[in-house]
Amino acid sequence: MKIKCEKASFLHGLQAVAKAVSAKNTIYALSGILIIAESDELIFRATNIEMAIEYREKDVTIVEEGSLVVPGRYILEIAKKLPDESLELASEGYTFFIRYGDSEITVNGMDREEFPDLPEVEGEVRGVFPLFRFERDIREVIVAASADESRPLFTGVLFEIDGEEVNFVATDTHRLAMKKSSWLSKGETGKVSIIVPNKILQEIIRLEAEEDSVVEIVVGAKEISFFTADTLFVSRLIEGNFPNYHQVIPAEDRVKAVAEVDAVFLLATLERAFVLSKELVREHIGRVNIALINERLVVDSRSPEMGHIHEEIPVAQQGEDMALIFNARYLLDILRVIDSERIVMRFTGVNTPLLLGRPDDDNYIYLALPLKG
Amino acid sequence: MKIKCEKASFLHGLQAVAKAVSAKNTIYALSGILIIAESDELIFRATNIEMAIEYREKDVTIVEEGSLVVPGRYILEIAKKLPDESLELASEGYTFFIRYGDSEITVNGMDREEFPDLPEVEGEVRGVFPLFRFERDIREVIVAASADESRPLFTGVLFEIDGEEVNFVATDTHRLAMKKSSWLSKGETGKVSIIVPNKILQEIIRLEAEEDSVVEIVVGAKEISFFTADTLFVSRLIEGNFPNYHQVIPAEDRVKAVAEVDAVFLLATLERAFVLSKELVREHIGRVNIALINERLVVDSRSPEMGHIHEEIPVAQQGEDMALIFNARYLLDILRVIDSERIVMRFTGVNTPLLLGRPDDDNYIYLALPLKG
Repeated sequence: MKIKCEKASFLHGLQAVAKAVSAKNTIYALSGILIIAESDELIFRATNIEMAIEYREKDVTIVEEGSLVVPGRYILEIAKKLPDESLELASEGYTFFIRYGDSEITVNGMDREEFPDLPEVEGEVRGVFPLFRFERDIREVIVAASADESRPLFTGVLFEIDGEEVNFVATDTHRLAMKKSSWLSKGETGKVSIIVPNKILQEIIRLEAEEDSVVEIVVGAKEISFFTADTLFVSRLIEGNFPNYHQVIPAEDRVKAVAEVDAVFLLATLERAFVLSKELVREHIGRVNIALINERLVVDSRSPEMGHIHEEIPVAQQGEDMALIFNARYLLDILRVIDSERIVMRFTGVNTPLLLGRPDDDNYIYLALPLKG
Repeated sequence: MKIKCEKASFLHGLQAVAKAVSAKNTIYALSGILIIAESDELIFRATNIEMAIEYREKDVTIVEEGSLVVPGRYILEIAKKLPDESLELASEGYTFFIRYGDSEITVNGMDREEFPDLPEVEGEVRGVFPLFRFERDIREVIVAASADESRPLFTGVLFEIDGEEVNFVATDTHRLAMKKSSWLSKGETGKVSIIVPNKILQEIIRLEAEEDSVVEIVVGAKEISFFTADTLFVSRLIEGNFPNYHQVIPAEDRVKAVAEVDAVFLLATLERAFVLSKELVREHIGRVNIALINERLVVDSRSPEMGHIHEEIPVAQQGEDMALIFNARYLLDILRVIDSERIVMRFTGVNTPLLLGRPDDDNYIYLALPLKG
């Protein structure tokens, strides 16, 4: 293999696949990045037991085709520190060379045979999203997913696909987010429900979406693939049955009060209240009082040791007054990502869910349970 | 106490003294910040066993004088999150209030009586540095100080004061830095040697130096004070005798080769070599080979496991060829802070110190011992 390219192209390729490099060294090859010089492209591939990422860089000159696996973490650290100039990348046997100016870096590589093949995802359920909208939908839903790996079902996002409709749902049992979305179906129009791991979605929502970028999705029996621009993501699906979430979402007639509030104001207020509530004993972390009284949202947080915070925000109120206790973190999480200047809060009672959403958008719901008084 | 001020003024005052807030809670008052509203100033003061910092903010309106100690870490975290607007700060008894808009934060404070007085530093040895030059001198010397608190002598910077001359020296026994500097003496002209703790100097070199900023220094029997613009720093001195460093600095006639090299090039090369050397076993951390051969500086680092890096940098060479082994970290530390585009390397032998410095500047020396081959 022999390639000429700029440092930026090489580094970008390595960074694009880095998250699929296995951090564990149990299978040595999985800690590597496979580099393939083929026709007019330099292909970077990394894979671990959960997911694989493949990136194709076209801004290179392939002098001689070939492939080699290089140690992932190490090559990435080196590449970041390379000078911003033209590189010659080459391999001889299992040795990889990075040359620039009068300098040469030699890296001990390994045989491609040791490296797993990219899983081929085949299935009749497939479709296309505008990338920008997919990223927004997933960001606003994934905040409700759990970080607790011991309950894998709750760490993923449910995709309920029915023809052109795709419903995204995530819950950690304390809060739930749902977005009724849609795609351009390219395959069967039947119903299917899958649970997609958090990790692969986190990678996709980090991509820079240009105005006309799209993401093409293929749902396989046990895997899912996402393809966008130069990058292919493959992930296993989470097995199991997602809990019946419909019963958790309160019917419209149970809404007793509605407040519309400035999202930035509410976020800043809760962040201050959270500083104080963190000082409390561990079991009460994030405990804040939220009351809707007479066209004002009143936020209180109290620590016997440190002090007290009392804030009032003017709101547009409908319905009765209300006072609830919340884990501030559950509200902060959604306020930090929601793409809206104003937030609608819909109260159903002291011990029943608070619904958050955008004004004039029935397709998105974020729901959080109050704490017991 | 009652004060009106902008959020920025309040936050800046707290941040200015934050490093002297005790992280340990053994003496409760030391974890606090004393706030004093007095005539036209708001004074912030923090102190721990090693140092004290006092900052005076004039951009405030004092409605009613008074003072109170507030919990340092907590008040700082709250202040960072306050809205960018006018605040009213007030105290009643031991309670501190922060008010803005329709909101109020109540903080449990404590009595000023519990808070130690600011040590008064008195002495006849005193003088003034331009702040910009003092910061540069200290930055270029302090890199050679040790981080090992079990040998306090080596964690400080020696100030050898003799009339208008001030010599700064630091060493961790593997490397040594010395700067022959000068100040405008305002007191006695006798000789005195003191060892100033790293921590207070790190605070001073973080200050933004304007063109005409100065730092006024008073050397006391066991303490030193630094005063600049709005801030007073007081630190205990490190007791003990600094080692005789003169014998470590090679005489000029022992220099066998001199290379002048681009500082940015050399830094980038060593950073790449360091990535590889880090992969080596712990005892060899940072091990790189540096050779001066025929107008080139050749840097090599080799790991049996990962690979090899070989770089060549053109240099202006005088004297013989030379090959040494170095801890790359010792060279990186100085290259990251030295204020010079070009570096002069003066080689004295394979097992004797390498001297680094600026071209045409005899007043600054950085010296590092090679590793055994």
